[in-house]
Amino acid sequence: MQSIIFGVGLCGLAALAYAAWATRSVLAASAGNAKMQEIAGAIREGAEAYLTRQYTTIAIVGLVVVVITWLLLSIHAAIGFLVGAVLSGVAGFIGMLVSVRANVRTADAAAKSLSAGLDVAFKSGAITGMLVAGLALLGVVSYFAVLTLGLGFSVTDRTVIDGLVSLGFGASLISIFARLGGGIFTKGADVGGDLVGKVEAGIPEDDPRNPATIADNVGDNVGDCAGMAADLFETYAVTVVATMVLGAIFFAGSELAATFMIYPLAICATCILTSIVGTFFVRLGSNGSIMGALYKGFWATTGLSVIGLALATWAVIGFGDAGQTSAGLVLNGTSLFLCGIVGLAVTALIVVITEYYTGIDSRPVRSISQASVTGHGTNVIQGLAVSLEATALPTLVIVAGIVSTYQLGGLYGTGIAVTAMLGVAGMIVALDAFGPVTDNAGGIAEMAGLPEDVRKSTDALDAVGNTTKAVTKGYAIGSAGLGALVLFAAYNYDLQYFIQQSATSDAYSYFRGVEPDFALTNPFVVVGLLLGGLIPYLFGGIAMTAVGRAGSAVVEEVRRQFREKPGIMAGTERPDYARAVDLLTRAAIREMIVPSLLPVLAPIVVYFGVYLIAGKSEAFSAVGAMLLGVIVTGLFVAISMTSGGGAWDNAKKSFEDGFVDAAGVTHLKGSEAHKASVTGDTVGDPYKDTAGPAVNPAIKITNIVALLLLAVLAHG
Amino acid sequence: MQSIIFGVGLCGLAALAYAAWATRSVLAASAGNAKMQEIAGAIREGAEAYLTRQYTTIAIVGLVVVVITWLLLSIHAAIGFLVGAVLSGVAGFIGMLVSVRANVRTADAAAKSLSAGLDVAFKSGAITGMLVAGLALLGVVSYFAVLTLGLGFSVTDRTVIDGLVSLGFGASLISIFARLGGGIFTKGADVGGDLVGKVEAGIPEDDPRNPATIADNVGDNVGDCAGMAADLFETYAVTVVATMVLGAIFFAGSELAATFMIYPLAICATCILTSIVGTFFVRLGSNGSIMGALYKGFWATTGLSVIGLALATWAVIGFGDAGQTSAGLVLNGTSLFLCGIVGLAVTALIVVITEYYTGIDSRPVRSISQASVTGHGTNVIQGLAVSLEATALPTLVIVAGIVSTYQLGGLYGTGIAVTAMLGVAGMIVALDAFGPVTDNAGGIAEMAGLPEDVRKSTDALDAVGNTTKAVTKGYAIGSAGLGALVLFAAYNYDLQYFIQQSATSDAYSYFRGVEPDFALTNPFVVVGLLLGGLIPYLFGGIAMTAVGRAGSAVVEEVRRQFREKPGIMAGTERPDYARAVDLLTRAAIREMIVPSLLPVLAPIVVYFGVYLIAGKSEAFSAVGAMLLGVIVTGLFVAISMTSGGGAWDNAKKSFEDGFVDAAGVTHLKGSEAHKASVTGDTVGDPYKDTAGPAVNPAIKITNIVALLLLAVLAHG
Repeated sequence: MQSIIFGVGLCGLAALAYAAWATRSVLAASAGNAKMQEIAGAIREGAEAYLTRQYTTIAIVGLVVVVITWLLLSIHAAIGFLVGAVLSGVAGFIGMLVSVRANVRTADAAAKSLSAGLDVAFKSGAITGMLVAGLALLGVVSYFAVLTLGLGFSVTDRTVIDGLVSLGFGASLISIFARLGGGIFTKGADVGGDLVGKVEAGIPEDDPRNPATIADNVGDNVGDCAGMAADLFETYAVTVVATMVLGAIFFAGSELAATFMIYPLAICATCILTSIVGTFFVRLGSNGSIMGALYKGFWATTGLSVIGLALATWAVIGFGDAGQTSAGLVLNGTSLFLCGIVGLAVTALIVVITEYYTGIDSRPVRSISQASVTGHGTNVIQGLAVSLEATALPTLVIVAGIVSTYQLGGLYGTGIAVTAMLGVAGMIVALDAFGPVTDNAGGIAEMAGLPEDVRKSTDALDAVGNTTKAVTKGYAIGSAGLGALVLFAAYNYDLQYFIQQSATSDAYSYFRGVEPDFALTNPFVVVGLLLGGLIPYLFGGIAMTAVGRAGSAVVEEVRRQFREKPGIMAGTERPDYARAVDLLTRAAIREMIVPSLLPVLAPIVVYFGVYLIAGKSEAFSAVGAMLLGVIVTGLFVAISMTSGGGAWDNAKKSFEDGFVDAAGVTHLKGSEAHKASVTGDTVGDPYKDTAGPAVNPAIKITNIVALLLLAVLAHG
Repeated sequence: MQSIIFGVGLCGLAALAYAAWATRSVLAASAGNAKMQEIAGAIREGAEAYLTRQYTTIAIVGLVVVVITWLLLSIHAAIGFLVGAVLSGVAGFIGMLVSVRANVRTADAAAKSLSAGLDVAFKSGAITGMLVAGLALLGVVSYFAVLTLGLGFSVTDRTVIDGLVSLGFGASLISIFARLGGGIFTKGADVGGDLVGKVEAGIPEDDPRNPATIADNVGDNVGDCAGMAADLFETYAVTVVATMVLGAIFFAGSELAATFMIYPLAICATCILTSIVGTFFVRLGSNGSIMGALYKGFWATTGLSVIGLALATWAVIGFGDAGQTSAGLVLNGTSLFLCGIVGLAVTALIVVITEYYTGIDSRPVRSISQASVTGHGTNVIQGLAVSLEATALPTLVIVAGIVSTYQLGGLYGTGIAVTAMLGVAGMIVALDAFGPVTDNAGGIAEMAGLPEDVRKSTDALDAVGNTTKAVTKGYAIGSAGLGALVLFAAYNYDLQYFIQQSATSDAYSYFRGVEPDFALTNPFVVVGLLLGGLIPYLFGGIAMTAVGRAGSAVVEEVRRQFREKPGIMAGTERPDYARAVDLLTRAAIREMIVPSLLPVLAPIVVYFGVYLIAGKSEAFSAVGAMLLGVIVTGLFVAISMTSGGGAWDNAKKSFEDGFVDAAGVTHLKGSEAHKASVTGDTVGDPYKDTAGPAVNPAIKITNIVALLLLAVLAHG
């Protein structure tokens, strides 16, 4: 066991080593001319200032939570929370630091060739990817090692479980703030900047005369890079922890517990190695297809991960019958290996489906472009239709994943599938995090007045970035859907454990006589499903309003600057970029607090509310149902928003090269149809980059808080 | 018992008598000048032609279903289906016939005074309302009487239950086609007509030069009047039947079964009388508030219904302990009376909340108007934010309703609450069906060139109509949410009944050994929830696409007419109105088939799919969970779409009198902000009038098909 833990730690370090190597390689590239460096410097400054302020605010909330966790649970839980929170913050912050340096280098490289631009941008993305996967795995495995090997707790001791769950909570709490804060910043800038710049003043995107343009580029880094990194860090950590907890519960009191807790760690470890290898396959082929280049890396990682899964299975549990759970289910190594393959297959299918719904040449995106020809209204109607429809295939894939893995290996099998899915997160995040870098590179090229074809290269990279961004979000929420049963099971079995212990010993007396009933015939289960189902809707509504408000504030600020400094439009006066950045910083930090607290407080309020009305058993039932309710609607809300938003964005891009409609007429940039497509893109912005992606951490945090609630009630 | 059934029948007839009296009164009003009559004639012709064709198509599908029902179940089930289907069709058709005659009379009356216009329009709406409630109640009570008193079946005989459920199925099948077909027609015309007329040609709404303008007014009658009537007829019938089935199951083998089956009928009967009385309270007060006038009628009905509930309770079950269910729960008359009051309270709260979210002077609507000032994009973003947020309060009200009624009277108590809620459907439908009449009246006034102030009166009526339309939809879907447990319970108890019988007798051998497990720990329950949750999304996506397609076809047709007949714009040539009507008729009928079959086939496909993979017990569990899944997401999808759409529509209306923004600037009709608000309104159209309202029948039909599936499996 010790040697495997050691090996897992080494794999985590390998990810960090790759990140260090790639960072040197990116920084070694030329940073362009003085003008480019000046612009990049402004973006860097803004991003660093925002993230510093955001993490300072979160740190204050975090410290309060650390103290509460310490008081209500234990010092080990409080430290676990700190580990999760700090590492999540580190992954996001370093990712951003690299990203704000890679942008200008990508612009410079793209001036040489598309291939060189892709290379720098992807490497920068891979740094964030490996930091996310590596730090998350290292955090979990080190804290597990410290608690068990170091402090000598038994692997199934409540201290170990509470410590790991608290680590997940730390990651979740950071991620919901980072996703929302970053999302509000970036889309407030984007929406506001576009509305005044493109629509009112008639200047192109990223025009240096637009006072919001630096803020827009800052947003890409703090939202799409740092926010996304925190989100995936959280998804990774929570999934691994939940599967480990299931292993601990299913083999409570057995020697095998350690084995089944380490197996998910081993899977993640081998998948980190295959992700690193995969990054070397990303290279522009002779057909010049950027998506094709990225796919090469993805398919290499996926293919190699099958071997990695086999190795992890062989090393930890073998391919025969590996053990019997306390419920009597025999877990077989080969079956669990197949579960892992199902997880990889679900990942691959979600990638392909998302590409279909958001790729620039696909039917759904073309249908939105076509609808733009008849106006703003039909564009938005068709975009909403696509967003609703886009939920169907991923849901069927997730359902197939649940059914097949459960048949193969019970709930633990489903857990292994989700673990394998998240195992390749390093590669998936790499595909995503390259997007904001290319987006920034395009902005810098525009502002620095680089030749037209540089912008063309960065635009081509950016269009693919829109799709890969949607892919990551579909993947994150898909893992939540597939993991729904695992998260709920962790709650259910934890509850059962406390109830059983309370019946046979003096411990956990709070749970004595509790009889939760999770059947759909119980009205409190229906109530829980409805209240859980409400969270993504209310949360989404508040997030959309926040972006609208921040965007309007930017509109007014930009209008004011245009009015007071008439030289800006003439190009003789420099706009005050910092004011827009500062305004958005304050808006984002103010607006992120309330919606973030909604999923944190909801399980607690529902528990005590139902408790007062109907009693403990009903309260535990309602909270359990709430955990599934938030996933049932959250899955649809998140997929529809992220896919729909991606499709709108690329429908707009399709006009840049001239969109040929069904009647054979070509519509160019600046045409009425293009203007309609800009409206759709604006609507899609907060859909895909603020409200939609934040649903995933909201789901997780609801689940984690429910688990902690149980721990606190057990402790108190 | 016989005397109560007789009394219930008399109340149903009273509704028809009111409808007959009101029809005479409406027809007695002046039908305006020749020009007005010519326009109204064209609308009437189009509406009659469309509905004839729609119902002919549905009749073909219906006849196939009748034969299948006969073969798979019994002649009694087939007749039940016919009764439900035919009466639903009759209610919608007659409602439309009145509505296309009341429109021109309302326009003429509005030329005299706002009060006279309101009087004609509301009376016309009340006719549809009373037809819906009266025919639904008469259908259920007569068929129940024929089967029990006439043919001598015991009230709890399977033939009676299957017959009643089939009646509900007949109503549901008609309603989903009517809602969708009508919705696609009306919004295809509206979206297409607005895009070419208002945006491209720059002519006002309802301008006679627009070739789509007659089609738009036809749509109001076939969609918002006939389609809505079929929807509410279905909701009424299914709710009453489900509550009766619960009564039969809970008191199976007891003398009391008849009492508890008749109680919901008695509640509906008294509420029909209070609805009729309520209509006489609708009168414009000295403050000239139209909403106030309608509220007077609504509050009178609600208040009197408390007395009605008391009378029904006293007459049928008394205020003491009324009986013990087979599960041992004692049902108390006073508690059930209180459950009925909860149902009325839920109705009242949903009305008030919906008015808040869609009323022209409320914060949400003003926030959309304000967002229009910064452009099309922010208008749509804010509208979507409002639509998401609008789900919160109704959900909390429904949750409170479920918890309180279940505590008071168990599942049967919840059923009684939903029954009372639907009891006042006559009044609610009246409030709604007056909307399309005023909308048409405005169109006729515009086309006939009546003075400006007539249009002002009809516009004022129409703005209130937008709110009351949203109210009815919220009410219908709210009753589905509150009734979720009742519908699921009907499935669950039916299934339990068959399983028990199969264990103790030779009957229903198909169910021998089946052990459904509806706990959330069962992966097939999670799978069912996800697949059920998908239905409203996929269905909504298809419906939105259909409207977009129909709207684009109208755009092209109108553009063609403008091109080929240049005299149209000059006013020297008459547009070919009939072609647009014909085009939409074909489009709507073609597009309504596939999405309507989705909820019909889904439970069957899921049952046999899961059966093949995992077995009977899992298949029954998955289908059961699917029934709740479709409600959990359907509730949110429907409320968000209908409230959001209503808010967008009234935000647009707020510009007609000049909207004063936060900075004190007034934005008039024709301003950029107004144009942005038209985009939002266009998006909201299919949201609120096609996809959103059709979710309610989709939910019901999924539930009813699942019940019939059980009956067929039991029979086969």
